[in-house]
Amino acid sequence: MTDTHPAAAATLTAEVAAACIAAADAFTAYRATGREERAVFLETIAAEILAIGDDLIVAAMQESGLPRARLEGERGRTVGQLRMFADVVRKGAWQQLRIDPALPDRQPLPRPALHLRMIPVGPVAVFGASNFPLAFSTAGGDTASALAAGCPVVVKGHPAHPRTGALVAAAIARAVEVCGLPAGVFGHLAGPSIALGEALVQDPRIAAVGFTGSRAGGLALSRLAQARKVPIPVYAEMSSINPVLLLPHALKTRGAALGKAYAGSMTMGAGQFCTNPGLVLAIDGEGLEDFMAAAAQEIAAAAAQTMLTSGIHEAYQSGVSTLEAMPDVEALARGQAGDAMQGQAALFRTNARAFLANEAMSHEVFGASSIVVVCRDADELTAVLEQLEGQLTVTLHMDAADEAQAASLLPLLETIAGRILANGWPTGVEVCHAMVHGGPFPATSDPRTTSVGSLAIDRFLRPVSYQNLSETLLPPELRDGAQGDGVPRLIDGVLTL
Amino acid sequence: MTDTHPAAAATLTAEVAAACIAAADAFTAYRATGREERAVFLETIAAEILAIGDDLIVAAMQESGLPRARLEGERGRTVGQLRMFADVVRKGAWQQLRIDPALPDRQPLPRPALHLRMIPVGPVAVFGASNFPLAFSTAGGDTASALAAGCPVVVKGHPAHPRTGALVAAAIARAVEVCGLPAGVFGHLAGPSIALGEALVQDPRIAAVGFTGSRAGGLALSRLAQARKVPIPVYAEMSSINPVLLLPHALKTRGAALGKAYAGSMTMGAGQFCTNPGLVLAIDGEGLEDFMAAAAQEIAAAAAQTMLTSGIHEAYQSGVSTLEAMPDVEALARGQAGDAMQGQAALFRTNARAFLANEAMSHEVFGASSIVVVCRDADELTAVLEQLEGQLTVTLHMDAADEAQAASLLPLLETIAGRILANGWPTGVEVCHAMVHGGPFPATSDPRTTSVGSLAIDRFLRPVSYQNLSETLLPPELRDGAQGDGVPRLIDGVLTL
Repeated sequence: MTDTHPAAAATLTAEVAAACIAAADAFTAYRATGREERAVFLETIAAEILAIGDDLIVAAMQESGLPRARLEGERGRTVGQLRMFADVVRKGAWQQLRIDPALPDRQPLPRPALHLRMIPVGPVAVFGASNFPLAFSTAGGDTASALAAGCPVVVKGHPAHPRTGALVAAAIARAVEVCGLPAGVFGHLAGPSIALGEALVQDPRIAAVGFTGSRAGGLALSRLAQARKVPIPVYAEMSSINPVLLLPHALKTRGAALGKAYAGSMTMGAGQFCTNPGLVLAIDGEGLEDFMAAAAQEIAAAAAQTMLTSGIHEAYQSGVSTLEAMPDVEALARGQAGDAMQGQAALFRTNARAFLANEAMSHEVFGASSIVVVCRDADELTAVLEQLEGQLTVTLHMDAADEAQAASLLPLLETIAGRILANGWPTGVEVCHAMVHGGPFPATSDPRTTSVGSLAIDRFLRPVSYQNLSETLLPPELRDGAQGDGVPRLIDGVLTL
Repeated sequence: MTDTHPAAAATLTAEVAAACIAAADAFTAYRATGREERAVFLETIAAEILAIGDDLIVAAMQESGLPRARLEGERGRTVGQLRMFADVVRKGAWQQLRIDPALPDRQPLPRPALHLRMIPVGPVAVFGASNFPLAFSTAGGDTASALAAGCPVVVKGHPAHPRTGALVAAAIARAVEVCGLPAGVFGHLAGPSIALGEALVQDPRIAAVGFTGSRAGGLALSRLAQARKVPIPVYAEMSSINPVLLLPHALKTRGAALGKAYAGSMTMGAGQFCTNPGLVLAIDGEGLEDFMAAAAQEIAAAAAQTMLTSGIHEAYQSGVSTLEAMPDVEALARGQAGDAMQGQAALFRTNARAFLANEAMSHEVFGASSIVVVCRDADELTAVLEQLEGQLTVTLHMDAADEAQAASLLPLLETIAGRILANGWPTGVEVCHAMVHGGPFPATSDPRTTSVGSLAIDRFLRPVSYQNLSETLLPPELRDGAQGDGVPRLIDGVLTL
């Protein structure tokens, strides 16, 4: 707690403790809610967010600098993922019900009846992202999945969009009240203080943390969480440069079109996406110069765009300057200049040898900056891939004639990233069941999970086994009479619907 | 690396690196094996272990001091869990296949096809347990579940049973050869060195660790794993005192019978089980004196039993002496004295106030030592439960008339332990689908998992999403043509068989 005076620190500690105590007190009642009740609660949050109306969009525009259409889309996504989790909660598969019936006559020893289900881990702390003030902040993916799992949530409001956060927090609080749930099901701690976030992660009542942001921030929270008397998991989505591979035939047949599309993906939202394509890998050959020329032309014409915060803007400027000054790095194009808070796109090229020799070249520059690495041959391309840190995505641009090469790369690509795309761009993350927005360290702190999509609920669950409990003591879903309700169960190892 | 000379340390480092390099090299080929091929491999390991014959039992008896019947049973369990994982691998549900088909006409944007499956995390380091030289060591639960997931395994052989470990390692190596797999699929590092284990966890090719042993050991490995450049998960099963609650009606109707059964569970295998009942909680009332008298009588008559290692024996003696010397702790009975390596059972009683005031009273004493905590009333019982650390198990002895009290305790018990039992004893862990051998810290380092039962495979898997990949590039199980093979798939959010 280095950024507060002692008196302020005491107030802050009391505020954090109060929110966490309320969450812990609400936990038993909240996790006891039935699936329908919990689903209706998630839908009510969605309705209350929509009910804020245009005030929410206007606040988010003013605070983030993002345009109206983008924020309206993001609101739709936020509401959509709450509804998706409502559907998931109703269907009940997340409980992973398992039943091994008693075998009283088994030799040499009888088997007792064993029943298993997933239960929520406890109150969850959520740190929202600046780049998605709606879909990955106060009522975003982490909050939605934790509430779906049955965990109360305490949000550390993002200082880059305090009014937006407060509007959404009030909507969730109304939903809590409308649904007759204890107020502690949702807590909201506003304020720019880093100490507040630290105190939240250290509070003994918090059982898990969801975080989206910088690598430094995610690692700091992970260290705090590990140093607790009872360590807890931190699900931090941190940094990724999202390599895009241009395979030879695709490059040859449509180099210029790919270059143009690349520039579009790279500059979308001022490049402020976790899945922004910050690295392109290609083997030197036909089409590559067309690709770079087309991309450079688009970038040179790209208007400057307002960035989310002055801190992000400064870090972007500094990252671009660092890249520019590196040996064997050539600037292919800069976008249009803008005002003091606007980011000017930047496109670079280098060769694989230089890239392999300079680890700093693979650091994320958050914003519309990207580098094309020209490889001599397939071996050099593989060497670059093998040196990369963990990524959220890796993309292949390929034609049918590239399939053999793509197939031989796939096992390696699977070890690098959580999502592998063909002939698309990594920006634009679908909220669905088969999505993985995650990946090996340092893309995230835990590659066994995703922060987008319905699988995200698993992060906030743990298994409990019940041995020889009477029907009346078993949770309702595990009683004999409950079977046939459409919830999947693994009975004696056989999945039944 | 404090326990080795420089030259020995260099040899050791080279030995660890060689095993990890071989495992990493074998990973691509091993994870590409089909389900049937991998299942047959697990079954072949089981067959090769049985083919060792009586030499294995004799070696384990000599090294562990455990009796023949127990080790023959443990061999059956070891072979049984390999076969269970073979069955799990064949059924394929562990892949968690998910398919969200393309929606080309969706407005405002089309949805690309998304496919998801679980893939293995990479080479796994396994540290076996001394108390299960077969079922939780070289070819034990961690090894079986990691191999089932598609991960090569490097075992750090337990120094308490080197010959047993070597025999089993040779059996696995034969199975690797018989099945035509790369030798690196299984590595075995023998020797007592702590530095060897440290080097193994720090090797950059290791992706996860399975550990069963002491809290100090598990925490040390966890810290090393967290301090790596790329942190990795450590699944450590550490310490638990497995509270047993005697509810009033059960105590009243069968106090003496419960006391006798308690002594049996507590002294089984010299008390050297992770699920040994080290703590009994009861409200003062009818039947409690009968319970304690019956237990004391059994304990006083209990023969001394050879313990696994001299270190475990010393720690047991020291733990019992510490308990004995605590204020308000009364020795109810000591078992028969034995020779220098034998453990003498120890039964104590105290009251809830003393227990609550002295945190050290709840520390695990590995061996046949247990303490009965007498509570004044239900509130005091709850206070003791709320102060307890995380446990593997918690047990209720109850009659129908105790159900209301049991039901009110259950939500709290679920937050304490991974397995809740009624009218049984925690010793004896069933290997099945609905088992959880895990629990909140410090019972384990990761309460989201189990180390026994088929759910253990999840520890060594991570999700990967494929966006817009052609049928030929998709993994076989995710292609359209594969549907109908009996493997469950979540298609557009609907589970289909």
